[in-house]
Amino acid sequence: MVKSMSQVTHAPLFGIAARTRKSPYFDATVRWGVKAFTVYNHMLMPLWYESPQADYWKLMTNVTMWDVAVERQVEITGPDAARLVQMMTPRNLSKCRVGQCKYVPIVAEDGGVINDPVLLKLGETHFWLSLADSDVLLWARGLAHGLGLNVTITEPDVSPLAIQGPRADEVAARLLGDWVRDLRFFHFREIDLDGIPLLVARSGWSKQGGVELYLRNGRFGSDLWERVAAAGKPLDIAPAAPSTIERIESGLLSWGNDVTLNDNPFEVGLGHYCDLDQEADFVGKAALRQIRAAGVQRKLVGVTMGATEQPGTEHWWPLTDASGERVGEVRSATYSPRLRQMIGLAMVQMEKTAVNTPLTVHAPWGSTAATVAAVPFAEKKF
Amino acid sequence: MVKSMSQVTHAPLFGIAARTRKSPYFDATVRWGVKAFTVYNHMLMPLWYESPQADYWKLMTNVTMWDVAVERQVEITGPDAARLVQMMTPRNLSKCRVGQCKYVPIVAEDGGVINDPVLLKLGETHFWLSLADSDVLLWARGLAHGLGLNVTITEPDVSPLAIQGPRADEVAARLLGDWVRDLRFFHFREIDLDGIPLLVARSGWSKQGGVELYLRNGRFGSDLWERVAAAGKPLDIAPAAPSTIERIESGLLSWGNDVTLNDNPFEVGLGHYCDLDQEADFVGKAALRQIRAAGVQRKLVGVTMGATEQPGTEHWWPLTDASGERVGEVRSATYSPRLRQMIGLAMVQMEKTAVNTPLTVHAPWGSTAATVAAVPFAEKKF
Repeated sequence: MVKSMSQVTHAPLFGIAARTRKSPYFDATVRWGVKAFTVYNHMLMPLWYESPQADYWKLMTNVTMWDVAVERQVEITGPDAARLVQMMTPRNLSKCRVGQCKYVPIVAEDGGVINDPVLLKLGETHFWLSLADSDVLLWARGLAHGLGLNVTITEPDVSPLAIQGPRADEVAARLLGDWVRDLRFFHFREIDLDGIPLLVARSGWSKQGGVELYLRNGRFGSDLWERVAAAGKPLDIAPAAPSTIERIESGLLSWGNDVTLNDNPFEVGLGHYCDLDQEADFVGKAALRQIRAAGVQRKLVGVTMGATEQPGTEHWWPLTDASGERVGEVRSATYSPRLRQMIGLAMVQMEKTAVNTPLTVHAPWGSTAATVAAVPFAEKKF
Repeated sequence: MVKSMSQVTHAPLFGIAARTRKSPYFDATVRWGVKAFTVYNHMLMPLWYESPQADYWKLMTNVTMWDVAVERQVEITGPDAARLVQMMTPRNLSKCRVGQCKYVPIVAEDGGVINDPVLLKLGETHFWLSLADSDVLLWARGLAHGLGLNVTITEPDVSPLAIQGPRADEVAARLLGDWVRDLRFFHFREIDLDGIPLLVARSGWSKQGGVELYLRNGRFGSDLWERVAAAGKPLDIAPAAPSTIERIESGLLSWGNDVTLNDNPFEVGLGHYCDLDQEADFVGKAALRQIRAAGVQRKLVGVTMGATEQPGTEHWWPLTDASGERVGEVRSATYSPRLRQMIGLAMVQMEKTAVNTPLTVHAPWGSTAATVAAVPFAEKKF
């Protein structure tokens, strides 16, 4: 019998310690009624305010502001900075210009995905990696020390605040000026907002549009939060957080949920970011070439799991085929209010990846039919 | 004015995802009434059952069992394993024998403390590092790759369960046999308990005595938990977790709270573990020699903060001296039911480290007198 662990039906309590660091926006998020947290990069991360679904609708239909200070930066500077950054990713960075963001899978020597940050190139020898939830700071420092590279690697005092939703540009323009409407996707500009040092990027972990304000001095946290709130007040801006519902509908990967150190880029749909034939050397090149040559045995796909609203994933849910054999697992799942069905991202054996393949999912709330589906599940804009 | 962030007066809710991995004991801890969690090494960690203080008294006066699967292992094997392990710590391991545990600060190239794990030597080329809360797996792999060492570094399926308290040995002997009473401090034995593969160590993150059972196959999680519970039933064993109260009373360090990457071993009282004159090379040797020669500017000390029971630290509380100058911060604090006063561990400037030095602490519940005190605060045994 395929078993799944138990699910917690009511959110348990959260014990806070100094170890679970507070964001510069923490006081503001408490004032604004944050109800639930998780930990991400050793920091408290707000999860929802009114409710996950209510917050989702505000993101989809209007505009929301998010404390995403947990997107910690690894800052790499020094003569060998560009070389180290290229060593850390299979993506070809030879054409990356100052002022650009790039999505760069970080890959280990065996081809496993360590993280999938956004790279920001602030100067020819000045980079930030805006992280998902793993200590890339330690990976980078270990690697640099072992290789004897001349770099400085730190976690700077930088804390992103995202404005996301169809009316995000309106809020950003009221706050920063109309120039922000013309900021191109995955480009950024460094500015000073009445003494508050910011880097403004056209980015964000949703497909609903908007910007991220990288605050470069934590003592302005409450000040920046309230300025965004004031600019957004006429548009009824609401506090929210990265939405599990929206990001699964949109097919955005979550490292630690859908992608781990035990998965390679080809398995999780990041193969097109890997230039294995570039001249530059990078960690994992030999391993990824071998994996490419051999072909992968499993792949991340979409699945639908019925129209009944059920709790989402607290852990991976086993998937079996008609014969009862385990063929993979659902790694993230949610009820989609737009599609009115349960949807998820699943890692499955290669021969089960065709759209419409019937499978069975073993969730804590029952075993039910699952069907392989195309990703993204929903149109980008509502 | 010295300001402190706001404190959450009621524990907020916790949002669980697959990314916050579940321990093999998770189902058991839910059955046994776990009330609150944190995240530690990307896993859910139970914090308390009845209440932090009620659980503390059970640990102090009787016997408790803890899910400490979050103490993840980094397993290092291969021809260069011993060399890599010695490279990672300033502690001299030349006399470490198979079957021994050693407390080994892991130090970065600049002397900062990356982690403070317990090393277990399973074989001449087979080691575990039983971790505090940072991704030493990535540090070790980055370092090994950069140095070109011939090692294999993984996170194995190993999940510790601790039995702690004055009657822990009685429970362990009922479960495993009387031999366990003779197991020496920081020594271990590998055994098979009716088909359950275990490593039993005389260790645990309290000063109340006991053992840790390193379960080597997660599918036996519930089985092992219930066997310990059954052996402990005649002694009224209770579920609990590492106790913030007990560990501060006993002066046990918590990485991420009291010690961070920005602190060196001499500042946090780990200088005596650093053999800077040993022949073997290790990362940070030059930096630590420089720090030793220059002397440190600050040190971790104990502080008492009045007899009124107040909430413990959610973040570092600023400390000032008589002139109002900031001289450090309280990093961990708790009310001690034994001593009937607020106690804590604080990093302060060197000239303020003498016992009885008067300071002022700025906690969210008010600014009050703090006095430098000797650590440990209380006798080991109740």
